[in-house]
Amino acid sequence: MNFEQVDRVRPLLWQDNHLSVLDQRELPHRQNHLICRTSSQVAEAIHVLAVRGAPAIGIAGAFGVVLAAHAVQADSGADALRAIDSELMALEQARPTAVNLRWAVQRMRSLLQGMGSDWREGILRAAQDIQSEDLAANHRMGRLGAELLPEGARVLTHCNTGSLATAGFGTALGVIRAGIANGRIAKVYASETRPWLQGSRLTIWELLQDGIPATLIVDSASAYLMQQGLVDAVIVGADRICANGDVANKIGTYAHALAAKAHGVKVMVVAPGSTIDMATASGAGIAIEQRPGTELTHIGGAEIGAKAAEVYNPVFDITPAACIDFLVTEKGVITAPDAAKMAAFFGPLSSR
Amino acid sequence: MNFEQVDRVRPLLWQDNHLSVLDQRELPHRQNHLICRTSSQVAEAIHVLAVRGAPAIGIAGAFGVVLAAHAVQADSGADALRAIDSELMALEQARPTAVNLRWAVQRMRSLLQGMGSDWREGILRAAQDIQSEDLAANHRMGRLGAELLPEGARVLTHCNTGSLATAGFGTALGVIRAGIANGRIAKVYASETRPWLQGSRLTIWELLQDGIPATLIVDSASAYLMQQGLVDAVIVGADRICANGDVANKIGTYAHALAAKAHGVKVMVVAPGSTIDMATASGAGIAIEQRPGTELTHIGGAEIGAKAAEVYNPVFDITPAACIDFLVTEKGVITAPDAAKMAAFFGPLSSR
Repeated sequence: MNFEQVDRVRPLLWQDNHLSVLDQRELPHRQNHLICRTSSQVAEAIHVLAVRGAPAIGIAGAFGVVLAAHAVQADSGADALRAIDSELMALEQARPTAVNLRWAVQRMRSLLQGMGSDWREGILRAAQDIQSEDLAANHRMGRLGAELLPEGARVLTHCNTGSLATAGFGTALGVIRAGIANGRIAKVYASETRPWLQGSRLTIWELLQDGIPATLIVDSASAYLMQQGLVDAVIVGADRICANGDVANKIGTYAHALAAKAHGVKVMVVAPGSTIDMATASGAGIAIEQRPGTELTHIGGAEIGAKAAEVYNPVFDITPAACIDFLVTEKGVITAPDAAKMAAFFGPLSSR
Repeated sequence: MNFEQVDRVRPLLWQDNHLSVLDQRELPHRQNHLICRTSSQVAEAIHVLAVRGAPAIGIAGAFGVVLAAHAVQADSGADALRAIDSELMALEQARPTAVNLRWAVQRMRSLLQGMGSDWREGILRAAQDIQSEDLAANHRMGRLGAELLPEGARVLTHCNTGSLATAGFGTALGVIRAGIANGRIAKVYASETRPWLQGSRLTIWELLQDGIPATLIVDSASAYLMQQGLVDAVIVGADRICANGDVANKIGTYAHALAAKAHGVKVMVVAPGSTIDMATASGAGIAIEQRPGTELTHIGGAEIGAKAAEVYNPVFDITPAACIDFLVTEKGVITAPDAAKMAAFFGPLSSR
């Protein structure tokens, strides 16, 4: 394990009054950085998936607020906020499913509203706080989650939930890093995660940089893997977690969870408090983003299949709380989450 | 519906003393035919997936026997058989999971053994019989399967089980063609079928030639589709069906079946008698073919993901009989197949 190496993977870096975004569309083949100098450039980077992962797009959104605010002249935070309202709305709408983006912009909004003449420094510090809090939360979740695993655990993860999807270290991948470090995890499977291949393009690449060998599978092989008794736990992140514990996450998560339930395999969801949405009662209330069919029919600009009459490309799905064994947040672990436990833990409409 | 068009898709054509194989590796972008003049060329075409689909590789195997036998001088079928024994063993081993290949070669072996001086014409006719019986079986299974569907059925299919995978018309795709023709089917979903993309490359292409619109999804979206109540039946083919009703089929079939069970969606398996293997007690006895990891990491020769430490690429999985609602064969339909029903239908070691 070499955490220095991990820290070199920085999806989002604030420097010289701009946000530098590692363009994840081009990974692992090229490490290209997009320089965002306006909030609309940040919104665009989020929309096209140059930056992705619920915590990471929350952090990007926070720096988008900084860029919007710094572009105006204002004597107070409240004055600045009035001038940038439409830009913040555009930022929040760059992607619909992950709640972290809306959460971060809202938190930045509230803080800016209360700031006086020193708001320019204050609002930058607020974004940096979101980033550093996320990193700390990931390390804490990593420890908490790894403790839940049996010795010699064989784990399966889906999508990418690592340094690339967060401020660093990762959520589900943070648990895997911590579990490798403390010796609990003996084997890591990564599902490729169609259509965008976050598993084969990003997770395998991140883990190899840590010297963690991972075995790549097609998404639909997980049920067969579990049938053979080769998996002890499914560890995934989340884009939004509802008041009843339902989880919106990358398409395919629900299929993995159903297979896990059928074979007595544990399902662990790892996400920071910013992913909790106590204002949404259940998964039925979550808008699932539909993306272009070309994500299925093309790879790298080349057509891979027949011209399809129609493509249905929901990029998230809903895993009901009943399928989840452990919800790991930086505040602690909820076992078999439900509405009552969620309310007790996060409050009915918590001011997180 | 235009069955003339369907019939133009001929994966296997015997003409001028050779077998012409439509190279499915290049579909749908190019329609290229491989000319096989020896049984080892047929074995190679099967091994590299130029021809695939359990019934189609059985038919190809039968013509492979013809090519092997026609290359020798012999006064009787039994003499010819002795001369080509090692070639037939190589043919049978070109792919391990589908039983149709072994079944076809065995049937050709038995027939050749009993042939007299007119064996050269006889053995060719035997292969042509296998091909025409498969076509007839598909049309019959199509009718039987379509009758089981509710009005306005929304169906999901996996992999390719159409004209390309058979002598023509198809197994699961034959049921879908028949269900579209008789108005029972209102909507067809095709899962792309990683890693080889038989769904997006072959099924979508075949259906569009019939004017049947199909909606492409990623494999892992089927559970979410069912959760939303958008699917009434999963209709798939099979590569081998055991004495207890367990089904080996394309990787991902089991995941679809588990999701179907969780949502009360019917699972229909459609396969000719040549797919039944009463000599194998259960799925545990089936050798699951492992194919190269490059099927996941590359598309069209280009690397799509990170260099993976390891790839696990089982290309079939086992769906337990308990997950199957209907087994449709040309001999009739078995509802909720189990060992007793299979034995009653096919005999303990049937001489099919």
